[in-house]
Amino acid sequence: VGAIGSMVVRHALERSYWVELVGAVDSDPAKVGRDVGDVVGLRKEVGLTVSATLDEALEGREADLVVHTTSSFLEKVTPELERAAEHGLDVVSSCEQLSFPYYTNPTLAERLDLLAKREGVTILGTGINPGFAMDVLPAVLTAPCLNVRAINVTRKMDASNRRVPFRRKLGVGMNVEEFREAVRNGKITGHVGLGESVSLLASALSWKLEEVRVGEAQPVISLGKARDLRTAVEAGRVAGVKQTAVGVVEGRQAISHTFLAYVGAREEYDLVEVDGLPKVISKISPCVHGDFGTVAMLLNMAPKVLASPPGLLTMKDMVLPSAFLPSL
Amino acid sequence: VGAIGSMVVRHALERSYWVELVGAVDSDPAKVGRDVGDVVGLRKEVGLTVSATLDEALEGREADLVVHTTSSFLEKVTPELERAAEHGLDVVSSCEQLSFPYYTNPTLAERLDLLAKREGVTILGTGINPGFAMDVLPAVLTAPCLNVRAINVTRKMDASNRRVPFRRKLGVGMNVEEFREAVRNGKITGHVGLGESVSLLASALSWKLEEVRVGEAQPVISLGKARDLRTAVEAGRVAGVKQTAVGVVEGRQAISHTFLAYVGAREEYDLVEVDGLPKVISKISPCVHGDFGTVAMLLNMAPKVLASPPGLLTMKDMVLPSAFLPSL
Repeated sequence: VGAIGSMVVRHALERSYWVELVGAVDSDPAKVGRDVGDVVGLRKEVGLTVSATLDEALEGREADLVVHTTSSFLEKVTPELERAAEHGLDVVSSCEQLSFPYYTNPTLAERLDLLAKREGVTILGTGINPGFAMDVLPAVLTAPCLNVRAINVTRKMDASNRRVPFRRKLGVGMNVEEFREAVRNGKITGHVGLGESVSLLASALSWKLEEVRVGEAQPVISLGKARDLRTAVEAGRVAGVKQTAVGVVEGRQAISHTFLAYVGAREEYDLVEVDGLPKVISKISPCVHGDFGTVAMLLNMAPKVLASPPGLLTMKDMVLPSAFLPSL
Repeated sequence: VGAIGSMVVRHALERSYWVELVGAVDSDPAKVGRDVGDVVGLRKEVGLTVSATLDEALEGREADLVVHTTSSFLEKVTPELERAAEHGLDVVSSCEQLSFPYYTNPTLAERLDLLAKREGVTILGTGINPGFAMDVLPAVLTAPCLNVRAINVTRKMDASNRRVPFRRKLGVGMNVEEFREAVRNGKITGHVGLGESVSLLASALSWKLEEVRVGEAQPVISLGKARDLRTAVEAGRVAGVKQTAVGVVEGRQAISHTFLAYVGAREEYDLVEVDGLPKVISKISPCVHGDFGTVAMLLNMAPKVLASPPGLLTMKDMVLPSAFLPSL
């Protein structure tokens, strides 16, 4: 029940006609034992307390599915996914590297797939990015194409209106040297998931990737013109991040991804250019909101995960994604 | 092997690494008995002749799937689908009303579903529209939404560059009285599939449609300004068609579709506006090409149809649509 998990809880509680909340887990001792409603920022108690572990949360309770929102990194979340699988629970997770774990760590991915099949559960990584904007949507946009030579995807976000932790991850306000140092020592990871998005997109088309090249996070330098004074960045300091990734198929750069997130980006958009027969050029403007989008993907995919065959699946294996908003 | 079927054959022959053409069927006596390559406009023979019926085409041959491109109307194609199912063949069809037959004719749809399950085959209706632009794509664009109040979809096409039969179906060049008369006597049907698209989209979201209202085809009147002299339409005559459809959910117009196809339309696009949390506004410009798009949807969905469980399925039941272009 961090930032995203708390949003999941709040929106899940509005879906009582198909969701029943049976527990919440957080490793933070400051949250354990408190009422879930209090922890997720509701003004009312929900009559459930936050547990320190999944085992404790499930004591005396039955559940179908875990919405998992802890870390971006596959190795870190693997023990948590294993525990959920051993409890016979399906998992829908926002872990970026889980969106296409066969890219990140094929050995671990195969181990999780075998475990999921043995326990009869489904595990899916999804979210807005990876999970939608730079992989699922571009894949769908190739469906009406007879041939595809190349796919270029750009997601451009204005970091002004985002959460503080998100801006901090982008190095907003640093000088260039501080930024480069933070990239070197891993404090700024850039956007996690570009390699996964390139791989998931290629896999959806049955393209065999020969190489995936993910560039280091590059600083976008402020011109000092951002209008919002609250988040304005001094000219010459870091306004955010630019990052690129390419996928090589049959010797050529068939997939090219560009991720831009900085304070003062004037136009926000998700642009997909399919150079194919026919050409398909699609623009979502403004770009799909990251936090709302991720929470929505988790909740909307949950019923589809429950209906899917066991295994470690990716979005390309799932039935058509869409909002799940059953009329009463 | 009409216009669309011939394109399917030509592109299927380029996919010899996963498609083997085993036969072609046409009811036109002028085509029966001729080499398929000749009939579909290739300069080379392919060593197969066009058969008058599916039964004849299958004599002494094995097949997995029929790509079916005969008529827009469910009642007309039902005997053809039944014969394919009795032969144990999966079907992917461009029949517009088959894209959501539970709207068109629920009784017939259930009969076909039962037959498909009994014979262990999958039947799918798809194409660019219905099948993608005004239903599948809008559904996918709601996936990152926590709530959806309304969805507006507009497809606007310039009829100048389209096939003559397509322009004829739009009444291009008629005067308004001739157009109205042609609508009354069924010679101009407008776009077939708007009601199916509205229903498929609602079904994907699990919205319960209370009513679908499909308007009559309305004439778009030429201002006499179309630049292409070959297709220019005299001012005051019909340049093409406008048609709308709405879907009512919980008492309000939750879905609104507008289809525009006329000579001289200045900007061609597929616009989807999801009024939700978050808002998602997507524009594909120019709109996805109709003929290429339909042929691509048929060929790209074929392997997914082969891998699907038996039954009469719709695009919302299928795994993520995308181009299928396996690297060699």
